[in-house]
Amino acid sequence: MLYFITGNKNKFEEVRAIVGEVERLDIDLPEIQDIDPKNIIRAKLLEALKHREGEFIVEDTSLYLDCLNGLPGPLIKWFIKTIGNIGLADIAEKAGNNKAEAKTIIGYAKSRDEIYFFEGSVLGKIVAPRGDSDFGWDPIFQPDGYDKTFAQMSKEEKNKISMRKIAAEKFLVHRNRIKP
Amino acid sequence: MLYFITGNKNKFEEVRAIVGEVERLDIDLPEIQDIDPKNIIRAKLLEALKHREGEFIVEDTSLYLDCLNGLPGPLIKWFIKTIGNIGLADIAEKAGNNKAEAKTIIGYAKSRDEIYFFEGSVLGKIVAPRGDSDFGWDPIFQPDGYDKTFAQMSKEEKNKISMRKIAAEKFLVHRNRIKP
Repeated sequence: MLYFITGNKNKFEEVRAIVGEVERLDIDLPEIQDIDPKNIIRAKLLEALKHREGEFIVEDTSLYLDCLNGLPGPLIKWFIKTIGNIGLADIAEKAGNNKAEAKTIIGYAKSRDEIYFFEGSVLGKIVAPRGDSDFGWDPIFQPDGYDKTFAQMSKEEKNKISMRKIAAEKFLVHRNRIKP
Repeated sequence: MLYFITGNKNKFEEVRAIVGEVERLDIDLPEIQDIDPKNIIRAKLLEALKHREGEFIVEDTSLYLDCLNGLPGPLIKWFIKTIGNIGLADIAEKAGNNKAEAKTIIGYAKSRDEIYFFEGSVLGKIVAPRGDSDFGWDPIFQPDGYDKTFAQMSKEEKNKISMRKIAAEKFLVHRNRIKP
């Protein structure tokens, strides 16, 4: 059985729509401190493998600001919690560089020695907040080629171009190849 | 026996000079992702108690920028790694607010139910880097009432006023009180 470990129902539905046979596992795995999401994901997968039988996927979706040389990355939630979207947009504006990358990494583990990563990336820019959203930084991320922020798009519209979709599709290709 | 768990020899010597009977334990404990250092310290202490007999101290020294509403805090090492001291000083300058706090928290555990915290704080400002240092952000932190950055002070000079000294002294008072 394939389990997607996530506390986020929306993320689960988005991935299931692509991957198909997958179950949600809502367990709380410790998140180590790192700016490389692969290290964070790997630690979670190894922890899950300790406690359960099965195949697991864990995802990380992070925002990388060019003017901060890659910050906040996976530390995004602490930025949102402290300075918020307005604070982040303000830093980009004052730096005179609003280029950003939204990146999803899906980590997949069958065993401790078989861990694979799949990436999806969307380039865009950081703008003053527009639109409402469940997802923290959607109001300040405007993907290149669009005049709306993620928060101003419908769920369908966003999911069509999202970094999570790209990563999930790469994972699916891999999984279909290794299927018995 | 009292153990100070740290990979940093300088920190150990600074604390031993005040606390006296303490041994260094250089083991690698996972650092959880949080902006509250007490949560990070508590997780490390609980992990140490799982594996060893004894009393333990773990310290966290963090830098809090007023213009970032408390960031980077314990995430400071990732800021240094990505944007460096110059990047941090630049953010403070562009925000027009260079107020900062350097804070050490020492966590002490005898058992899972007996965990205590001791704080030492030094107020100051973020300046363009001056001086060399082993400690990452010493060149950009100038304590209030001084015209030197931490990096421009001798070790003795810095240790006399440091946030780590204040926290260690508070811990010592507590320890002497509970001693049999």
